[in-house]
Amino acid sequence: MDNAPKKYVYFFGDGEAEGSVEMKSLLGGKGANLAEMTNIGIMVPPGFTISTEACRYYYANDGAYPEGLEGEIAQNLARLEKITEKEFGDAKNPMLLSVRSGAAFSMPGMMDTVLNIGLNDKSVAAIIEKTGNKRFVYDSYRRFVQMFGDVVLGMEHSKFEQFLEAKKKLRNTKLDTDLDSNDLKDLVSKYKEIIIADTGIEFPEDPEKQLKMTIDSVFESWNTDRAITYRNLNNISHDLGTAVNVQTMVFGNMGDDSGTGVCFTRDVATGKNEFYGEYLMNAQGEDVVAGLRTPHTFGQLKKELPEMYRELEAVRDRLEKHYREVQDVEFTIESGKLYILQTRGAKRTIQAAVKIVVDMVDEGLIDRDTAVLRVNPNRVDQLLHKRVDPEAAVKVIANGLPASPGAAVGRVVFSSQRALECAGRGEDVVLVRLETSPDDVGGMHASQGILTARGGMTSHAAIVGRGMGKCCVVGCNDIDVEVAANRFTVGDIVVNEGDYITLNVIGDAGEVILGKTDLIDPEMTGDFKTIMDWATDAKRLGVRTNADTVHDSKVARDFGAEGIGLCRTEHMFFGEDRLPIVQRMILAGSEESRKECLKKLMPMQKEDFIRIFEVMKDHPVTIRLLDPPLHEFLPKTEEEIKETAASMNIGLDELKGSIQSLHETNPMLGHRGCRLGITYPEIYEMQVQAIFEAAAELAGDGYKVIPEVMIPLVGHINELKFTKERLIKTAEGVMKRCGMDIKYLVGTMIEIPRAAVTADEIAEEAEFFSFGTNDLTQMTFGFSRDDIGKFLPFYIKEGILESDPFVTIDQDGVGKLVEMGVRKGRSTKPDLKIGICGEHGGNPASVEFCHRAGLDYVSCSPFRVPAAIIAAAHAAIKEKKDDA
Amino acid sequence: MDNAPKKYVYFFGDGEAEGSVEMKSLLGGKGANLAEMTNIGIMVPPGFTISTEACRYYYANDGAYPEGLEGEIAQNLARLEKITEKEFGDAKNPMLLSVRSGAAFSMPGMMDTVLNIGLNDKSVAAIIEKTGNKRFVYDSYRRFVQMFGDVVLGMEHSKFEQFLEAKKKLRNTKLDTDLDSNDLKDLVSKYKEIIIADTGIEFPEDPEKQLKMTIDSVFESWNTDRAITYRNLNNISHDLGTAVNVQTMVFGNMGDDSGTGVCFTRDVATGKNEFYGEYLMNAQGEDVVAGLRTPHTFGQLKKELPEMYRELEAVRDRLEKHYREVQDVEFTIESGKLYILQTRGAKRTIQAAVKIVVDMVDEGLIDRDTAVLRVNPNRVDQLLHKRVDPEAAVKVIANGLPASPGAAVGRVVFSSQRALECAGRGEDVVLVRLETSPDDVGGMHASQGILTARGGMTSHAAIVGRGMGKCCVVGCNDIDVEVAANRFTVGDIVVNEGDYITLNVIGDAGEVILGKTDLIDPEMTGDFKTIMDWATDAKRLGVRTNADTVHDSKVARDFGAEGIGLCRTEHMFFGEDRLPIVQRMILAGSEESRKECLKKLMPMQKEDFIRIFEVMKDHPVTIRLLDPPLHEFLPKTEEEIKETAASMNIGLDELKGSIQSLHETNPMLGHRGCRLGITYPEIYEMQVQAIFEAAAELAGDGYKVIPEVMIPLVGHINELKFTKERLIKTAEGVMKRCGMDIKYLVGTMIEIPRAAVTADEIAEEAEFFSFGTNDLTQMTFGFSRDDIGKFLPFYIKEGILESDPFVTIDQDGVGKLVEMGVRKGRSTKPDLKIGICGEHGGNPASVEFCHRAGLDYVSCSPFRVPAAIIAAAHAAIKEKKDDA
Repeated sequence: MDNAPKKYVYFFGDGEAEGSVEMKSLLGGKGANLAEMTNIGIMVPPGFTISTEACRYYYANDGAYPEGLEGEIAQNLARLEKITEKEFGDAKNPMLLSVRSGAAFSMPGMMDTVLNIGLNDKSVAAIIEKTGNKRFVYDSYRRFVQMFGDVVLGMEHSKFEQFLEAKKKLRNTKLDTDLDSNDLKDLVSKYKEIIIADTGIEFPEDPEKQLKMTIDSVFESWNTDRAITYRNLNNISHDLGTAVNVQTMVFGNMGDDSGTGVCFTRDVATGKNEFYGEYLMNAQGEDVVAGLRTPHTFGQLKKELPEMYRELEAVRDRLEKHYREVQDVEFTIESGKLYILQTRGAKRTIQAAVKIVVDMVDEGLIDRDTAVLRVNPNRVDQLLHKRVDPEAAVKVIANGLPASPGAAVGRVVFSSQRALECAGRGEDVVLVRLETSPDDVGGMHASQGILTARGGMTSHAAIVGRGMGKCCVVGCNDIDVEVAANRFTVGDIVVNEGDYITLNVIGDAGEVILGKTDLIDPEMTGDFKTIMDWATDAKRLGVRTNADTVHDSKVARDFGAEGIGLCRTEHMFFGEDRLPIVQRMILAGSEESRKECLKKLMPMQKEDFIRIFEVMKDHPVTIRLLDPPLHEFLPKTEEEIKETAASMNIGLDELKGSIQSLHETNPMLGHRGCRLGITYPEIYEMQVQAIFEAAAELAGDGYKVIPEVMIPLVGHINELKFTKERLIKTAEGVMKRCGMDIKYLVGTMIEIPRAAVTADEIAEEAEFFSFGTNDLTQMTFGFSRDDIGKFLPFYIKEGILESDPFVTIDQDGVGKLVEMGVRKGRSTKPDLKIGICGEHGGNPASVEFCHRAGLDYVSCSPFRVPAAIIAAAHAAIKEKKDDA
Repeated sequence: MDNAPKKYVYFFGDGEAEGSVEMKSLLGGKGANLAEMTNIGIMVPPGFTISTEACRYYYANDGAYPEGLEGEIAQNLARLEKITEKEFGDAKNPMLLSVRSGAAFSMPGMMDTVLNIGLNDKSVAAIIEKTGNKRFVYDSYRRFVQMFGDVVLGMEHSKFEQFLEAKKKLRNTKLDTDLDSNDLKDLVSKYKEIIIADTGIEFPEDPEKQLKMTIDSVFESWNTDRAITYRNLNNISHDLGTAVNVQTMVFGNMGDDSGTGVCFTRDVATGKNEFYGEYLMNAQGEDVVAGLRTPHTFGQLKKELPEMYRELEAVRDRLEKHYREVQDVEFTIESGKLYILQTRGAKRTIQAAVKIVVDMVDEGLIDRDTAVLRVNPNRVDQLLHKRVDPEAAVKVIANGLPASPGAAVGRVVFSSQRALECAGRGEDVVLVRLETSPDDVGGMHASQGILTARGGMTSHAAIVGRGMGKCCVVGCNDIDVEVAANRFTVGDIVVNEGDYITLNVIGDAGEVILGKTDLIDPEMTGDFKTIMDWATDAKRLGVRTNADTVHDSKVARDFGAEGIGLCRTEHMFFGEDRLPIVQRMILAGSEESRKECLKKLMPMQKEDFIRIFEVMKDHPVTIRLLDPPLHEFLPKTEEEIKETAASMNIGLDELKGSIQSLHETNPMLGHRGCRLGITYPEIYEMQVQAIFEAAAELAGDGYKVIPEVMIPLVGHINELKFTKERLIKTAEGVMKRCGMDIKYLVGTMIEIPRAAVTADEIAEEAEFFSFGTNDLTQMTFGFSRDDIGKFLPFYIKEGILESDPFVTIDQDGVGKLVEMGVRKGRSTKPDLKIGICGEHGGNPASVEFCHRAGLDYVSCSPFRVPAAIIAAAHAAIKEKKDDA
C-alpha cells in the first residue's frame, strides 16, 4: 500500500513547474497554463496551485482542509520566499501575493481575484520605502482592504464606496486620482472600521490569516447561486470543484521602467499574422481597462523599447509554437523585467478564425483536421450575411429570438400586402407581424427582414426566414403590435408604419434597432472556400438542402449542397397565379371539379420541377407531396374572405361555410399529409404526374434526373401502401406515354412517433426514410411549436430543458426514436437510405448526432448548408480520433 | 415417403362422419358441425364436405382442381346414392342436392345456398309422381333455375323478377302462391331463355354439370369484393379459403306428415331453461321466413305430434349436453322422419346470456371460467341502461356514433343555458350541439341525452357522456345544426327547439328518433351479480374508475370499482359557484392576485375531495392535478364574453385581449398539464393543500385515506422533479400543521411519447405510472381526436386502419410504447405500480392487452366498470388456459 501523503499543492516558478497543461481537471485551466508556461521557459511570477481535489475534500468535510494541506501551503510559501528573496509577512522585505480561482471550465460567477495579500500596516511602510511611491502603496492598501471586505467577507460594495465618495466630495473632485496618500490612508482606517462594524470580524493584519481566509472564500465561491445556475445551464458537474492559484505580485507601476499590457499573437479581427498589442508604462492592468489613459500600440513599443518588444516577440513565438493556437497574453514589466501573467486561446471573429486556421496549416503548425475542428459551425453563418457595423452607435429598443441571421434596414409595414405595395415602389421594408402564416410568404419575400412578436425558433416566420436567408427576429415579446392602429410600441416608444427600423441578428442576439443603420457586407474569402473544401473531404454524411425555388436551389448548390433533401411542393401553390386555382380546387364540391382545377395546376407544377431539376443536374431531388391542411390555403381575415369571395364569384356565406367546415381544433394533428393524399388521391396524382413529366422532358434533354418521391405524415404502413400503389400507377402511366424508363425512389417521412415505432414494417414499403424532426419533436414532446412561447423560456431558465428541442435535437427522447427508426428500418431493409430534413439538419449539435445515428445525409435550409458541412466534418474527424 | 393421394372430401351420413367439430379450419364451421352431429347420432341429411384445402389449391392453380378431387366427389356421390337409395341424375328416382359454402369464420358476402341441384326437365316428372304435388315441384324447379342464374352465373336478380311480375300481373295477383303449376312451368322456360340470352351459356340439364358449376361458384365467392372487404375489416386472412358442403335434399312440404321449423334449446330472449321453437307442417323453411303463414308454437307441437316433440326434445338434450351451449337448430320433417339441417350457437340477448351461463354452471354443464368467458364484455353495458322498447314503432331520422349507451327522451335544446333553464323547470331535454366543450358540462348534466353533429367516440361529448352514464350520440353527420335558427334539419325534416326527440344507443347503433318513445328499465338480475362475482374472482387486473363527483364514485363502487384511477380535478372548476373565481384567477395579472383567488377555491376543492374520499373509504384515489389549458375556462362566444365582462366588472376589450393572449394554435399540444403547474406553481400548491387537508380531516375521523397524487403531461423527468419537489413541500407543510403523518404516493401520467421512451428515467421519481392512452394515441398517431372525422371513417372503410384507435388500443404502435413504458419503468423501479386511465381502460380488447402488458389496473368511466371486470377476467382465464 502506498502510504505517501496525498499531494494537494503544485508549485511553479524559476523555470520549472510540478503541473502541466494536461492537468486541467486537477489544477483548473489557469493553474495548468501557468505551470505549462513555466515549464516552457516563459517568465511567470512564481506561485503555486491548490488542486481541485482539495476543494472537493473541503466540500465533503464541512469546510475542513485535508490532512497535510496546511503544511504543503507553508512549504510552498517558503519556496516562494526563497526564489523572490522576500518574506511573506515580513516588515522589511515583504512578499505580496495574489489569489485567483480557476476551475477546469471557464466559469463566470466565481470569485475572480484578490490582490496584494500580505499588505498590512507594517508592510506598507517597507514597500513605500522600496518603491518611493506613497500614494501608490496606500491606494493598493485601500483597494486590498476593500476587496477583502467585499470578496472574502461578502460585504456590499456600496459600504466602501460611500466613504470614497465623501472623501472626493470633500476634495471637490470626481476622480480617485485627485486623492492624495493621506486621503487614502484615512480611507484604509475607515474601511477597517466599517468591516468590524458590519461583520463583527476584525480585518486581519496577519498575512497568513489573510491568505487562509481568501483561499477559503475561493472554495466557497464554487457554490454561489450564480455559479450553480451557470453549471446547471451548461451541464457542468457540481462535483468538480475549483483550484486556487496563489502567485507572487508583480507591479507595472513601480516607475518608468515598469509597465503593463495585453497582446494577441495574431490579429483577432482579421486573422492576419501580425503581432498586435497595447501597453502603458508605469501603470497597472486596471488603468488600461478603466480607459483613463490611452494605451500605446506595439508600433510605439518597437520604437521606444526595442529590447522589450523583441523579448515579447520571442514569447509570442514560443507560445504559438507550443500551443499551436493564437494566444491572448497579459504581461507586466516590473523594473525592466518582463513577466507573463496569463495566456489563453484568443477570442476571434469567425472571419479571423477561418484565416488563422488556413494560415496555420500552411505554416505547418496544425493539420487540416485540426483546422476544420477549430471552425465553430455555430458561427459559420456569420460569414454569409450582412451585419450592423459594430462600431455604429445604435439604439436597441427590443430583443427577440435570433431566428435567421443577418441584418435588415427598412420602413415598418404591418401587412404582407403593404409590404408588396411598398417593395413594388422600390422601398425597403421590414415586415412586422404578430406571427406569420403561409399567406405572408409573398410579403416576406418582398421585405428586407421580418419581425414577429410571437413564435419560437421554428415558427413559420423563422423557418421561412431562414429558408429565404432573410434576417428574422421572432418571439419579440418586448413589442406590442397594434395591427389595427398600424403601429407597434415598446414601452413609451411608438413605431408607426413607415418609420425606419433595423434588425440585427448575430450570434445569440436578435436586436431591434430604432432608425436606419449602416450595414457591412459579408466577405467570402478564399480561406473560407479552402476550409469548406477540407470539411467536405473530411465528412461522411451527405449534406443536402431544403429548397423549393430555383433561387434557393442555386444558393444551396453554391454553398455546397449535394442535392435537395426536401422540396416542399405546397410552397409552389402560394404563387399569385396559382393560389386562386388552388382555392377553387379546395372549395370544389366534387372530385370532377377538383380534377378540373388540378389539371390547370399540373403544367405549372411541372414547370417548377423542370427548373429545379435543371439547377440540381445529376444531384438527387427529394420531392415531398402536399403536406399542409387545405385550410392553410384559404383566406383568414374578414377582408381577405370578402376579397376572395368577390374574385371567385361565390357567395360570402358559402365561402365562410366552407372555411368553417375545414376548421380544425388542432391543425397540427389534423387532416394533412398523406391523410389528404388518401382522401383526395387526385391531388397526389397530379403532383406525381408533374414530377414524372418534368423528369421525362429533361431525360429527353440528356439530364440524369432521379426523382425521390416522398410521402409525408405516414404513421401506419397501410397509409404508405395505399399512396404508393396509386403513385406507381400514375408514374408508370407517364413513362408509358413518354416511352421512357425513369429511375425513381418512393420513400416516406418519419415524423410521427408511430412511424418510428413501426419502422420495420414501414421499411418494407419504403426505399428511403427522411426524419422530419420538426413534427417528430412536436409529437414526441407534445409541444406545439406555435404555442411553446408561453412556457419554453421558463423551462430553459429553470433548467428543466437544457435547450430548445426545436433547435437542438433532444437526443434522450426524440433521438431515441430516431435511433429506433434507423435500427428497425434497416432490420428489414439493410440498404435503406436514411436522411433528416427537419430544421435540425442545419443545427451543428444535431448534425453530429445524425452522424452517430448512422444517417446517410442531412438536409437543411440553404444558408445552413456550410454550417452543416463543417459539423458533419467535425463528427467524422472526432469519430476517427476516437477510433484511433 | 407417404405416396397416398391427399384427401379433399369428407363424408357424413348414416351415423358416422369422417370429420368432427375440431376440424373447422379444414371443413369450415358448417361442415364441421354437420360431421359432429352425425357422429353423435343426430339424423342429418347425409352429404360430404369439400375441404378448404381444395379451395386453396383452386386459387393457387388458376381454378384447377387438385388431382383426385373429381374422383373423390364421384365416390362420395355414389356413397350418398347408396344410403338414400336414389340416384343423382336418374330420371326415375332422382337424388337432389343442396350446396352451401362454409368457411372457418362466419362470413357474409359469400355464396349462401343453391338448392335442388339435380332437377331438370326429366327428373321433375319423377318427383311429381313421387310427391303428387305438381305445383311444389315446378316452383322448386323455377327457384332452382333462378338461383342458378343468379348465384352461379352472376346474373341480376331483376332479370328473372320481371317475368314473375309479368305473370302475376297477367293473373291479376300480387302473390306468388296464386300462380299455378302451368304458370311456373312456363316461367322455367322463360328463365332458361333469358339465361342463354344474357350469358351465352345454356342452363345445364346435366346434374353433374350443375353440381360442378355450383361448386366452382362457391370457390369463386370466396373472393367477391364484399367478402374481401369483410375479411380486411375483420382481419381474417385471405388465404384460408372456403369449404363446400354438398348435402342431400329433404323436403318439409311433401305432405301433411312433413314440416319444417326452428328451435332454440333455451329461451334466447330471457335465458330461461325452456325449449322454444316454431314450426309449420307441409312447408319449407322459406315459408316460415316469408311470414305468409303464421308458424305454430312448440306447445301445439307437443299436443298434436307428441312423438315428434319427444324426438326433438331428445335432440335438444343431446345437443346441449354435447355442445354445452345453447343451440339454434333448424329441422325438417320429411314424411314423418326428423332431419336436423343445422345447429349452431344461438344468438341471445345479453340478459339471456348471463342467465344461461349461471344456470349451466348450476346444472354442471360448464365451469365458472367457461361461464365468464361466454359473457361478451362488449355487450355488458346493455344491462345497465334504459332502452327503447324494441316493439315500439319508431321513426329513425338519423344515425350517429353510439358514444354512450342507453336511451333518452326529451325536448330539443341547442345551448347549455337553455338546457339548464328547461331542466330547472322540470322539463326533460336533449342537448343538441355541433360539438361540446367543457362549458357544456353543466348543460349536459341537466339533459337526458346529448346529440352532436361532430366528434368521434372519444370527443368531449362522448367522454363526458359516458362518464355521466348519459345516452349520447355523436358525429351525427346526417343532421345540420343551425344554432342561430334554434333548429336542426335532416333532409326535409325540421326539428325546432322544444320538439321531442328520442336517442337510442344500443350495440353499434346510435339512433335519432323523431318524437317521444317509451323506454324500458334495465333489469339488474341476481344472475348478473353472480357472474360479476365470478369474474371478479377470476381476474388479476385491478379495475378502478374515472370519477370526479360523489355520484360517479357511488355508481362505480356499486358496479365493482376498486378505487378511483383518475379523478380529474378540473371538472370541479366548472361549478357555477367556482367558474367566476377560476376565471378571475386566470385573468389575474400577478401571482399575488392569483393566489387570492386560489385561496377562495381551496376550501371548495377540499370539500370535493372529502366527499369523494368518504365514498371510496379505504380504496385508493388517484387525483390528477389540473390538466386543461386555462383558456378552456374562459367564455367563447361574443355573448358569453359580454356577460362575463359585465359580471366580472372588467372592460370588454380587456377581456377579449386576455382571451386572445391565451389563444393557442394547437391547444392539444399547448400550455397545459404540468406545464401549467410549473409556470404557475401556486395552482398545484392549492390543489395539493386541498387534497392533504381533506385527507387529514378524514384521517381524524378514522378513515384510511391514501391519496395518489398524479402529475399530468410529463414528458421529461425534470418536469416531474420540479413539480414533485414543491408538491412534497406543500404536503409536508399541511401534515406538520395538522400534526399528522399521511401515507401518499406521487406518480405521473404516461401520455406523451417521450415519457414512454424515457420511462426508465421517469420511474426514478415516480411511485406509479398511469397510461393516458387518449393523449398517447393522439400524439403517437399525430391524430387530433377532435379532427379525425374528416379522414378516419375513410381509413376504416378502406381498411387502412382496422378500428378507431381511440376505441381499441393500437397494439402495434401505441401498445408498443405502453410495453416500452412498462419495461423501462420497471427496469429502474421493479415494484412500480402501473395503470391505465385513458378511455381504453373500459374497452374489452384493450383491457386484455393491458393484462398481457403486465399492468396492475385499468380505470374507466363508471358504466364501463362491469365490462372491464369481465374483460379482465377473460384475459386471466385465457392466460391460465394457455399456460395449462
